[in-house]
Amino acid sequence: MSTNGLISQDTIVALATSPGAQGAIAVIRVSGNEAINIVNGVFKGKDLTAQDSHTIHFGTIREGEEILDEVLVSLFVAPNSYTKENSVEISTHNSKYIIERIINLLIKKGARAARAGEFTLRAFLNGGLDLSQAEAVADLIASNSAASHQVAMQQMRGGFSNQLKQLREDLVHFASLIELELDFGEEDVEFANRDQLKSLIQKIYTVIGKLIQSFEQGNVLKNGVPVVIAGKPNVGKSTLLNALLNEERAIVSDIAGTTRDTIEDEINIHGVTFRFIDTAGLRDTEDVIEAKGVERTREKMKQARLIIYLFDPTQDNIAVVQQQISEVRDLNIPFVTIINKSDLLAEGDRAEYNVLNPLYISAKKQLGIDELKEELLNQVNLSNINTDDVMVTNIRHVEALQLTQAALERVLYGIDNPVTSDFLAMDIRQSLHHLGEITGTVTTDDLLENIFSKFCIGK
Amino acid sequence: MSTNGLISQDTIVALATSPGAQGAIAVIRVSGNEAINIVNGVFKGKDLTAQDSHTIHFGTIREGEEILDEVLVSLFVAPNSYTKENSVEISTHNSKYIIERIINLLIKKGARAARAGEFTLRAFLNGGLDLSQAEAVADLIASNSAASHQVAMQQMRGGFSNQLKQLREDLVHFASLIELELDFGEEDVEFANRDQLKSLIQKIYTVIGKLIQSFEQGNVLKNGVPVVIAGKPNVGKSTLLNALLNEERAIVSDIAGTTRDTIEDEINIHGVTFRFIDTAGLRDTEDVIEAKGVERTREKMKQARLIIYLFDPTQDNIAVVQQQISEVRDLNIPFVTIINKSDLLAEGDRAEYNVLNPLYISAKKQLGIDELKEELLNQVNLSNINTDDVMVTNIRHVEALQLTQAALERVLYGIDNPVTSDFLAMDIRQSLHHLGEITGTVTTDDLLENIFSKFCIGK
Repeated sequence: MSTNGLISQDTIVALATSPGAQGAIAVIRVSGNEAINIVNGVFKGKDLTAQDSHTIHFGTIREGEEILDEVLVSLFVAPNSYTKENSVEISTHNSKYIIERIINLLIKKGARAARAGEFTLRAFLNGGLDLSQAEAVADLIASNSAASHQVAMQQMRGGFSNQLKQLREDLVHFASLIELELDFGEEDVEFANRDQLKSLIQKIYTVIGKLIQSFEQGNVLKNGVPVVIAGKPNVGKSTLLNALLNEERAIVSDIAGTTRDTIEDEINIHGVTFRFIDTAGLRDTEDVIEAKGVERTREKMKQARLIIYLFDPTQDNIAVVQQQISEVRDLNIPFVTIINKSDLLAEGDRAEYNVLNPLYISAKKQLGIDELKEELLNQVNLSNINTDDVMVTNIRHVEALQLTQAALERVLYGIDNPVTSDFLAMDIRQSLHHLGEITGTVTTDDLLENIFSKFCIGK
Repeated sequence: MSTNGLISQDTIVALATSPGAQGAIAVIRVSGNEAINIVNGVFKGKDLTAQDSHTIHFGTIREGEEILDEVLVSLFVAPNSYTKENSVEISTHNSKYIIERIINLLIKKGARAARAGEFTLRAFLNGGLDLSQAEAVADLIASNSAASHQVAMQQMRGGFSNQLKQLREDLVHFASLIELELDFGEEDVEFANRDQLKSLIQKIYTVIGKLIQSFEQGNVLKNGVPVVIAGKPNVGKSTLLNALLNEERAIVSDIAGTTRDTIEDEINIHGVTFRFIDTAGLRDTEDVIEAKGVERTREKMKQARLIIYLFDPTQDNIAVVQQQISEVRDLNIPFVTIINKSDLLAEGDRAEYNVLNPLYISAKKQLGIDELKEELLNQVNLSNINTDDVMVTNIRHVEALQLTQAALERVLYGIDNPVTSDFLAMDIRQSLHHLGEITGTVTTDDLLENIFSKFCIGK
């Protein structure tokens, strides 16, 4: 663990609530050894240095004789705070002018403007939460659906970390026995029972395999299911998107090729987010701007987890449609075939399309939209996900788990083959190293900077 | 005082911090008899009903078994809160999803979504602050300069109210003596010494007169000084505005008539806000859109407290300029004459313009801009304002003061002329009534609704 470069004893300050003119109050957060002393120096009210942790005090913040604001000050005495340091939260009137004056005053008195994520970094460095929990804080703030919220909440509360911690402890036990064998060098002793070790490694390997598998669904729950609406120009793709979003987001017109750029938007179906990617039509075109749109469509389709293929029976016959569908099928992505404008189709004419097993809708008349939503849920097979299961949602974690898995494979090979203890020990150490990267038992300054710089300032 | 219609015993809830994705934390505010009980019902941690006021408690907010968030709950037990009611502030992670879930949960449990300004309305109704102080809370949040901040802070802390309260108490004393005279009907007694009464009324009249006079400056400090930049097309008005704002706000081009609409922006010179009003050029035009702009310019000029008249010596000779200046002078608003593009003027040619007593600048080359800023401050004569003086900044207050003044004039007339005590008493009562309107001793539901509906929700 090499984090000395990041540990600092200075006192940091930042606005912790959203900027903007709409709120009534704002909260300025201060953390560090001198947090309470610095605030006390500009606060007129009770002596804050003589008050208990977790108490609130009314008073004024003053620069010289000038009153900057009447405030409520919340005290958190180390180690009983988010950062585990002395911390103060100053609740002010929500005026940009006042907030700037107070933050500048605290900086004059010895505090420093906090960097992005620095409060949470300190919470991690001081043992308040592990790295995967810290990352979950950012996920939690970004959560916008029941599913993404639940996955982030579980991770923040340590579900994932606890599972890894147990695996790691078991493995550390065997690692120490193997390391002991090394001390005896030539003597060919075996302190670590190879059968028990093999059984443990297999167990860990299985658990990690499941965690890696959970990423696909975890990622979808966190980031939403990317869905492309494909089809020839003017079959009603934008209208369908609007029907799904129930708003006039895309420009809809009767002129083929109206939708030139991709427009992304989201809907939430039973707690799962679907990110719809509206695309320019799939056709050759002389229009340069639109040509770019078509290229982008193909790119987007490859990123999709699901494709909605839309066609207009009043425009195309079934032979044309089947040709297009076979092109989409080549992408090897689940897809749903939809016949739009089905209200214009005589009941008798439906038979010939049934071979495509389509959904019949009218985007314009909002017919069949609920059935489509159900089908979307079925297709991504998320309806029966148990979000109580530990789920991996972070690409960094998956990569560390994959490296752990590879090291464990080498350990298993070493047990079954004539390999010396020192190679076995090295591979176990590598497994431990990669597991440790997830929760931050093993970190580098670069890794931490990379993670926390993505946080907002004030967190 | 008729406020029963607005007093309600229910418990209200609202987001108190600004919405937006940038913040780390958000604060949900709950106030009312049941505030602590309602939050306690969804909070897992300590029993909040058994805790002291002004203490903070960590725990989770749960809907059934589902954890909505880990939060800090701040308790304020009546009457020791902003609203004087039981109040709770819930500090959550700043996720729109979490905030909505928690507010909806609290509403399910018996709270009600707060209306705009309802927390401050309750603070007023429960005697926490008077009406002019409540109004100052909104002014304080909106303050964006040292001057507007100081005036609002002084009003919120009761400077203005205290002054009125003293005047009112003195007057109430005499009013009661006069009313007593009425009880004696025909007996022609005088309990109230007419000389003392007259001297008091004159004193109050003087103080109120000063307060009314302070409005012009107070309003300017609060809302900024409206400044119009006038001049013929293409003399560099937009360039000057940009030079003053130091940003590319207006579209600047060499084509006369580019600026079609008015663009407002503000700068802060030594704590005073100047609101610049950029205008379409002052000339006859065939262009319909621009014609509207010219009309708007004349309107704007009448609202200005100061006019900057700009001309281009490479375009117009002094006779044309003098003609235009005399038109501006007719508006009877202070104005500053500025020669733009003065860098293109040979030193010898300046003499002929000196009769106009102009400032020489080059907006494009940023020459003379600081001198212009100094001149603006001088013109509005704000440099020597003492913001410690009580100052009226609210049009509602001025109107009430003017009505008070009129009633006092009638009292003075009544003292010096043969008027019966009952007329005198009526005029004194009217003075008291209008004074009371300012601090809210006298209110109506309509007045309160009108004032508080302009607040943001959560305040």
